[in-house]
Amino acid sequence: MPTPSRRDLANAIRFLAIDAVEAAKSGHPGMPMGMADIAEVVWNDYYRHNPNNPSWFNRDRFVLSNGHGSMLQYALLHLSGYDLSIDDLKNFRQLESKTPGHPENFMTPGVETTTGPLGQGFANAVGMALAEKLLAQRFNRPEFEVVDHHTWVFMGDGCLMEGISHEAASLAGTWGLNKLIAIWDDNHISIDGDTQGWFTDDTGKRFEAYGWNVIRGVDGHDADSIKRAVDAALASSDKPTLICARTTIGFGSPGKAGKESSHGAPLGKDEIVATRNALNWPHDAFDIPQEIRDGWRAGNAGLVREDQWNTLFDKYAAQHPQLADELVRRARNELPKNWAAAADAYIAKLQADGPVVASRKASQMALEAYGPLLPELIGGSADLAHSNLTLWKGSKSVTSDDANANYIYFGVREFAMTAISNGLGLHECFIPYDATFLVFSDYARNAVRMSALMGAHAIHVYTHDSIGLGEDGPTHQPIEHVASLRYIPGNDVWRPCDAVESAVAWRAAIEQHDGPSCLVFTRQNLAHQPRTAQQVADIRRGGYILRDSVGAPQLILIATGSEVDLAMQAAAQLGEGVRVVSMPSTDVFDRQDASYRESVLPNACRRRVAIEAGVSDFWRKYVGLDGAVIGIDRFGASAPAEKLFPHFGFTVENVVQVAKALA
Amino acid sequence: MPTPSRRDLANAIRFLAIDAVEAAKSGHPGMPMGMADIAEVVWNDYYRHNPNNPSWFNRDRFVLSNGHGSMLQYALLHLSGYDLSIDDLKNFRQLESKTPGHPENFMTPGVETTTGPLGQGFANAVGMALAEKLLAQRFNRPEFEVVDHHTWVFMGDGCLMEGISHEAASLAGTWGLNKLIAIWDDNHISIDGDTQGWFTDDTGKRFEAYGWNVIRGVDGHDADSIKRAVDAALASSDKPTLICARTTIGFGSPGKAGKESSHGAPLGKDEIVATRNALNWPHDAFDIPQEIRDGWRAGNAGLVREDQWNTLFDKYAAQHPQLADELVRRARNELPKNWAAAADAYIAKLQADGPVVASRKASQMALEAYGPLLPELIGGSADLAHSNLTLWKGSKSVTSDDANANYIYFGVREFAMTAISNGLGLHECFIPYDATFLVFSDYARNAVRMSALMGAHAIHVYTHDSIGLGEDGPTHQPIEHVASLRYIPGNDVWRPCDAVESAVAWRAAIEQHDGPSCLVFTRQNLAHQPRTAQQVADIRRGGYILRDSVGAPQLILIATGSEVDLAMQAAAQLGEGVRVVSMPSTDVFDRQDASYRESVLPNACRRRVAIEAGVSDFWRKYVGLDGAVIGIDRFGASAPAEKLFPHFGFTVENVVQVAKALA
Repeated sequence: MPTPSRRDLANAIRFLAIDAVEAAKSGHPGMPMGMADIAEVVWNDYYRHNPNNPSWFNRDRFVLSNGHGSMLQYALLHLSGYDLSIDDLKNFRQLESKTPGHPENFMTPGVETTTGPLGQGFANAVGMALAEKLLAQRFNRPEFEVVDHHTWVFMGDGCLMEGISHEAASLAGTWGLNKLIAIWDDNHISIDGDTQGWFTDDTGKRFEAYGWNVIRGVDGHDADSIKRAVDAALASSDKPTLICARTTIGFGSPGKAGKESSHGAPLGKDEIVATRNALNWPHDAFDIPQEIRDGWRAGNAGLVREDQWNTLFDKYAAQHPQLADELVRRARNELPKNWAAAADAYIAKLQADGPVVASRKASQMALEAYGPLLPELIGGSADLAHSNLTLWKGSKSVTSDDANANYIYFGVREFAMTAISNGLGLHECFIPYDATFLVFSDYARNAVRMSALMGAHAIHVYTHDSIGLGEDGPTHQPIEHVASLRYIPGNDVWRPCDAVESAVAWRAAIEQHDGPSCLVFTRQNLAHQPRTAQQVADIRRGGYILRDSVGAPQLILIATGSEVDLAMQAAAQLGEGVRVVSMPSTDVFDRQDASYRESVLPNACRRRVAIEAGVSDFWRKYVGLDGAVIGIDRFGASAPAEKLFPHFGFTVENVVQVAKALA
Repeated sequence: MPTPSRRDLANAIRFLAIDAVEAAKSGHPGMPMGMADIAEVVWNDYYRHNPNNPSWFNRDRFVLSNGHGSMLQYALLHLSGYDLSIDDLKNFRQLESKTPGHPENFMTPGVETTTGPLGQGFANAVGMALAEKLLAQRFNRPEFEVVDHHTWVFMGDGCLMEGISHEAASLAGTWGLNKLIAIWDDNHISIDGDTQGWFTDDTGKRFEAYGWNVIRGVDGHDADSIKRAVDAALASSDKPTLICARTTIGFGSPGKAGKESSHGAPLGKDEIVATRNALNWPHDAFDIPQEIRDGWRAGNAGLVREDQWNTLFDKYAAQHPQLADELVRRARNELPKNWAAAADAYIAKLQADGPVVASRKASQMALEAYGPLLPELIGGSADLAHSNLTLWKGSKSVTSDDANANYIYFGVREFAMTAISNGLGLHECFIPYDATFLVFSDYARNAVRMSALMGAHAIHVYTHDSIGLGEDGPTHQPIEHVASLRYIPGNDVWRPCDAVESAVAWRAAIEQHDGPSCLVFTRQNLAHQPRTAQQVADIRRGGYILRDSVGAPQLILIATGSEVDLAMQAAAQLGEGVRVVSMPSTDVFDRQDASYRESVLPNACRRRVAIEAGVSDFWRKYVGLDGAVIGIDRFGASAPAEKLFPHFGFTVENVVQVAKALA
C-alpha cells in the first residue's frame, strides 16, 4: 500500500463508524462520514494533546456537540492512540462498554464532556474557553505561557437551531474568546429531512451579529479548504471563530449520502459493500492497515508536547513558586490548607451571632467569608446580581483584564449560564456558581441534569424559593421546583432554614467535587435557630433533630427552609412530646447510614407532619400514608408574602391543627 | 386644559404605572415609562380590538413579552375602556386583584397570555400569528376576509437574550408571518445595569439573518418615527417585522431615567414629584382628567369595528354556511358532534383487536383515528417526526398553502415549540400538540408549566419514555421526568400501558380544554391487556383495577406503562390474593372521589408494591412507608433495552421477590 492519502486516513474514521454502527445494529453513521475529513485535518495537523495522558493540563479541549456522532470521536481517540481498543469499538453501545451511544466524560478517556443534548456541548466549550482565558490571565507570565490551549467544538444544524446556541454564542462574542473554534457541519440535513423546511437562518450572518469571526464557503471534504479556514481561525486575535463547512452527510455512501437515511441507522450490509467500493476501502470491518495507523501518529508527538510543557512548567515553578503551587493545587481540586478550619470558625461564629437575615443574604455572607480563600470560585447571575446577591467584595468582572477576574454577568441566559458553568467545572481549576430565581431553574433544567450526569462540580444558586417571593406572582413562585430538582439523580439540593444552615450548605457544595449542588434561598428574612455544637455538626448530614422531644417522640414535625421556624413555634404549642427535624437536604440525609436515619426518624413514630412551601406529595417518603403534609399543590398568587403564607395555610395555628388531627 | 397632546396621553400610562407601583410598594415602573409613547401610538392609531368584548373573534392580539412591565398593559386596558377600573389599578399586586404582578390571561380581561418568564410571550405571539395565518388560509374566501388580524408583541432586551427568542424568531422567519409585528424596547438597560457588558449583539442583523423585515433607528419617544415604522411593518407582505425602537427606561424621571434604578422598584415619593414636574403632569395619583380619557377613545371604535365584522360574517355565513359553522364550532371549543361516539367505537375496537405495538405507535394510530374528525388538531415534532410518530395520513405542512395545513416541522427547538403550542392553544380554533423525546421535555419545561398555569389546551407528546429507549444512553433516558411533570400543578400526565390506554389518553387530552396533558409513550412494544367494558370505561379515571384479587386484596401491585405487564406476570405467580392496579394518570386518579380511590386502593391493604421505570420516591404517596417501590434512582446506561430492564431490576422474578419480602 502506498503512503495513505488524507482521504484514506479519514476513511478509517468512516469505516470504523460504519462498522461499529452495523455491529451495534444502531447508531449514527452519517455525521462521522460527513465530518471525517474535517476531523482528520484538525486532529492530525492542529490538535495539541497527549493521547498517553488524556488529562495533560495544557491540552486542547475537543467537544463533539453533535454527540450522536460519537463514533467520530471514538474513532479519533482510537486512531490517535488513546486507551480505547478495537475491541472497545466493537462493543459500541453495549452495557458498560467504554463506547456508549453518546460520548460520556465519565466512561471514555479523552472525552471532555458528555454530549448529546443538542447545543449544550457548544455551551460547555464556551465555558472551557473562558476557563483558559482566565487562567492565562492569572497565571501566565512573560515567557511562561503555561496556560495556552484552544477549545474546538464540532456542531451540527441541530445545535444551531437550539436556543442555547444563541445564548452561548452571544456571550462568547462579548467575551472575545478568540481561542474558541467552532466548526459547523453544514450538511442541510436533520432528522426530519432537508432543513430547508425548518432551518432557513443565515447562520454566518447570525454569528457575525454576535461579534464572531465567520469563515464561510469551506469545503468540508477538501483538506486545503479546511486548513485555510483553520489557519484563519488560529489567527483571530479577539473573536471566536465559526467555520461554516459545507459537508455531505453519509459522504461516500452511493445510496445514502446527502440523505437523512444515513443519519440515525446502520447503512445496511449491501450499502456498506457499495460504500467500501465507492471509497476504495477494501479492508474488513475493524481492520485498519498499519500504514493507516502510522498516518495517525499523534501519540508520540503528544509525549514530546507534554515533555516540553513540563520543562517549561519546571522553570516557571522555579521563578514563580507561589503561582505554580496555586495552579497545581487548583488543578488537583484541592481546597486551600486553611479551608476547613476557616469554614468551621465562620460557621461557629454565625451560630453564636445569630443573624436574622434572608437566606439569600446569608448566601452572600457565605461568599464574603469563603470567597477570599478560594480564587477558584467563579460565578455570577443571569441578570439578577442584586436579587440573587451573588456579588461579593472580591468580585471582578471577567470582561475586565483583572488577574483575579471571577464574576460573570451572564445576562438573561439561564440555560447557557448553567452549561457554561458545567464547562468551567469540567475544566480544571474552577469551582463555578451560577444563579437565578428558583422558578427559572426550569429554563436551565437539562443543564442541571447534565451537571449531575457528568459529575461536574457546579453550584447552582436559586433564590426567591417559594411564594415568599410575593408580588411577582405565580410565574415567579416555585411550587414543584425543589421536589423536582431533588429527583435528579446525583444532585444535592439544599434548602437551609437560617444563616447557619446556609453557610453549611455553601460549604458542602464547595466540598462536593463529584457533582452539583443546588442551593435554594429565600427572599425574606428567617429567624435564627439555637443549636448545640453537635447540632451544628449534624447539619452536614442533611437532616437532624433541631428540637427533641422529652422521651420517645409522640409526633415529629419535619420542615425545611422558611418553614422550620413555623415547625418550632408549633412544637412549642404542641408540647414536650414533639420532635422537630430540620431537613435542609433530603439527598444528603438519604445517604446517611440506616442507624442515623432511624435515630432521627424512628420507624415507630408514624405521627409525622412535613411542612414545606412546595408540592406536598414529595414528603410522603417521610410521612407515609398516615402522616400529613402542609404543602402547596396549586400555583401561587400575586400578593405581599405576609398575605400569601396564611392564605396557603402556613400558620402556626394550621400546623397545630393538622398535627392534632392525626390519629 | 387644551386638547391633550400625544405625550399627554402617553403620560397617563406613565403616571398610572408610577402611582400603582408606588401604592403597591413594588413593581416595575421603568418599562411602562419607556414604552408609553410607543404603546399610545400603537393602541390609539393601529390596534384593532373591541374593549367592550375582549374575546371578539377577529381582534388583534397584543402580547407584552416583557411582562414585568404589566402596568403598561393594565394602563392601556383601563384607558381603552376594558373592564378594569381605577380601583383595580389601585389594587395592583394585591391578593386576588385583577392586576397581579405579571399579566395573567386568566385574571384580567384583554390579557391574551400570561407573561413574565422572558421570551415566552414572544413565542406565544408567533403561535398566535401562525394561528391567524392558517385560519385565514382555511376560512377566508374572496371578499370575505373573516380572519384578518395582526399580532403585536412588545419585548425587551431580556426576551432577546433568552434562547427561546432565537428559536421562535427563526420559525417566524421561515413561516413568513408578515402579520407579526414585534417592537423591541431597545433601552440598553437590564437589571444588572448597562447591557454593554453582557448584550453586545447586533440584534437587527440577527433578525435579518432569520429573514425578518427589520426597521432600525426608530425613536421610541417620537410619535412620527413610531408611525413610520408601524406603517412600514404593516406593508410587509411576506416577512415578520422587528421594529428596533430606541427608548429611555424610566423616561421623564429626572433622577432615574436611563438607569436600572427605575427598572424594578418604586421611584420613591420625591422622585415622583420631580417626574410630575418634569413631564408637566399636575394631576393627583390615579386622577386622569376627562380630556385625557376622551383622547383614549378606542371603546366606541371597537363597537363599530365588531359590528362591521359581524355584518361581514353574517354574509359569509349565508354564502359559506359549512365553513361558517365549522369556524363557529372551533371558536367555541366544541368538539364535532360525532366525536364521542367515534372515539368510543375506536377504543372498543382496539380492545377487541388487541394490537401489540409500542405506545408511540398506538399514539400514531390514535392520530389516524381521531385526526380526520378534528381539523382543529395541529401539531408536529422537534425534528423527530419518525421517532415520535407524529405524522399521520392527513398531515400537511404549514409551510404549504394547503387549506388543511396542520403539521409543523418545528426543527430542533423544544422550548419555542412548546410556547408556540401555547400560543396556538390560546388562540381560538386550535388544539395543538407537540412532541419530542421525554428527556428533552427538560428543554421546554417552563413552557409546559406555563401551559398549566394559563390553562392552555396543549398536548405534549413525549416518546422514548424510559431506559427502554436503549442504546442512546443516559443523556436520552428519562429517570426523573414523569414524576417531575406530574408535580406541575394542573398538568395531566398519562403513561399508558398498551394501545387501548394510549387511545383513551389521547381522547382525554383532546377533551381537556382547560389545561395541558403530557402523553408519555414507549419506544418498545407493549403487550395488550384484556379488559371488560367497565375496565375500559374506568381507564378515564386515571387508575383502575386491571386484575382483581379473589376476596380482599392481600397485596396490591401498582404500575404504569411498560411496567404494567410485568405486574400482571408477577401477579400470576404471586397468586389469587393479588390485585393489579394500572395507573396511567396519577393526576386524574387523584381527582376521583374518595370512595372510588378507596375502592381501588383500600386503606386496609398496606402490602403494596409500585413499579415504574423512573424515580421511586414519587410512589411513596401510594405505597407509604411499609410498601416497596421498584424504580430507578440513578442515571440509565447505553445498551439494548432488553439488557437494561433486567440490569435495573425490572424482571418478574424481582417483582415477585420484592413483594414476598414485604411484611
